[in-house]
Amino acid sequence: MPNPTAAMLVIGDEILSGRTRDANMHHLAQELARAGIDLREVRIVADDEEAIVAAVNALRSRWQTVFTSGGIGPTHDDITADAIARAFGVGIGVRDDARAILAARYEKMGTELNEARLRMARIPDGATLIENPVSGAPGFTLGNVHVMAGVPAVFQAMVASVLPGLTGGTPLISRGLRVERPEGDIAGPLAEIASDYPALSIGSYPFIQQGRYGANIVFRGTDAAEIEAAMARLASVFPGETR
Amino acid sequence: MPNPTAAMLVIGDEILSGRTRDANMHHLAQELARAGIDLREVRIVADDEEAIVAAVNALRSRWQTVFTSGGIGPTHDDITADAIARAFGVGIGVRDDARAILAARYEKMGTELNEARLRMARIPDGATLIENPVSGAPGFTLGNVHVMAGVPAVFQAMVASVLPGLTGGTPLISRGLRVERPEGDIAGPLAEIASDYPALSIGSYPFIQQGRYGANIVFRGTDAAEIEAAMARLASVFPGETR
Repeated sequence: MPNPTAAMLVIGDEILSGRTRDANMHHLAQELARAGIDLREVRIVADDEEAIVAAVNALRSRWQTVFTSGGIGPTHDDITADAIARAFGVGIGVRDDARAILAARYEKMGTELNEARLRMARIPDGATLIENPVSGAPGFTLGNVHVMAGVPAVFQAMVASVLPGLTGGTPLISRGLRVERPEGDIAGPLAEIASDYPALSIGSYPFIQQGRYGANIVFRGTDAAEIEAAMARLASVFPGETR
Repeated sequence: MPNPTAAMLVIGDEILSGRTRDANMHHLAQELARAGIDLREVRIVADDEEAIVAAVNALRSRWQTVFTSGGIGPTHDDITADAIARAFGVGIGVRDDARAILAARYEKMGTELNEARLRMARIPDGATLIENPVSGAPGFTLGNVHVMAGVPAVFQAMVASVLPGLTGGTPLISRGLRVERPEGDIAGPLAEIASDYPALSIGSYPFIQQGRYGANIVFRGTDAAEIEAAMARLASVFPGETR
């Protein structure tokens, strides 16, 4: 049976403007690979309601699970919850259980639950909350879409809350072999190996280091023995040039 | 006049599987911001022809310029050129000028221009070549789509080849102010500033460091004086807590 599929939507002006380098996508990709869920597509859009609605609807209809990051805080540019509600055609408002979580949190910290913070209790109708052990304000799940914070520590905590509840597949095993030969020399033998091991996904990722050409060949699949066999075959074709 | 728009398509199993952390998107985002071109959307898809064709066609019809990275090398998993030809409905074959570039390069290196390497001279009909001063094999431009390599050093060289030929806009200036207060305290005053400076894009990017909450407030726009004024206003609201 093929593994479940997933997509991610990053809502992030700060990434599109080059200010920030993504960290959440990389984290989620690694966690999903471990869980046997295939991350098939990522989109990054601006803090723009039209763009978020269109992307969420495209991704949720195409892939089994969608994760979003960003835009659920208290400031004026946090518009993700409203966009998700609109994408699903449902209402949105401050919800008692979310408000109670925030109230308890801020009381403990001696912080005022002001109007801005209360925005974080606005949850689309029909959603369930995602726990946020780091900073309180919850994410939420609506249909097959998990809406999470953009702050990496919070995003990671929410991923940890959500993942155990998802049906995983066979974890993808990935092994790499570094071949210190130009990719053009590797290509022919590699294509033969790829055709002899159709169950494996074999990728070639070239590099240039100090003027020398090489490629990291990555074998991915669910059968460790098969991966080792394909790697051994490649190593035998390029003896002394793999490690 | 609004700035020209752009999108990027990353073709990369290695990013979706969590093996590699993106570098090219971050580089392009920074270069485009400097050139006054607004990067509005990024998509990352697998090394899958259907997925590439669909994404290229969606992005090129929506944004003024599209940049792709990855999948134009000599190995079996390099399918980008064919996918681009299909997306545009044009033919593809080994082209003399591209072959001549490769032949000259490999002759100088004493390397054989074998069948695998010749794949890199396959260029969709009607495309113009993008120079690759790093490793020879060219990228290409077809319509409003610039097809470039995934190896960061080569990607960066190709971006440098392409950018001067594009019509830029007013470079986006971006200034940040770090406020050492929880975002929930910043949100109210910040919303007022955002509404008083409608020409600026004002983002709030919260952080948690050693258990302390704060946010980097980023002001983006094309008028430096306006940005400084908005920053000064924020600093006056939170004296002693900004830097």
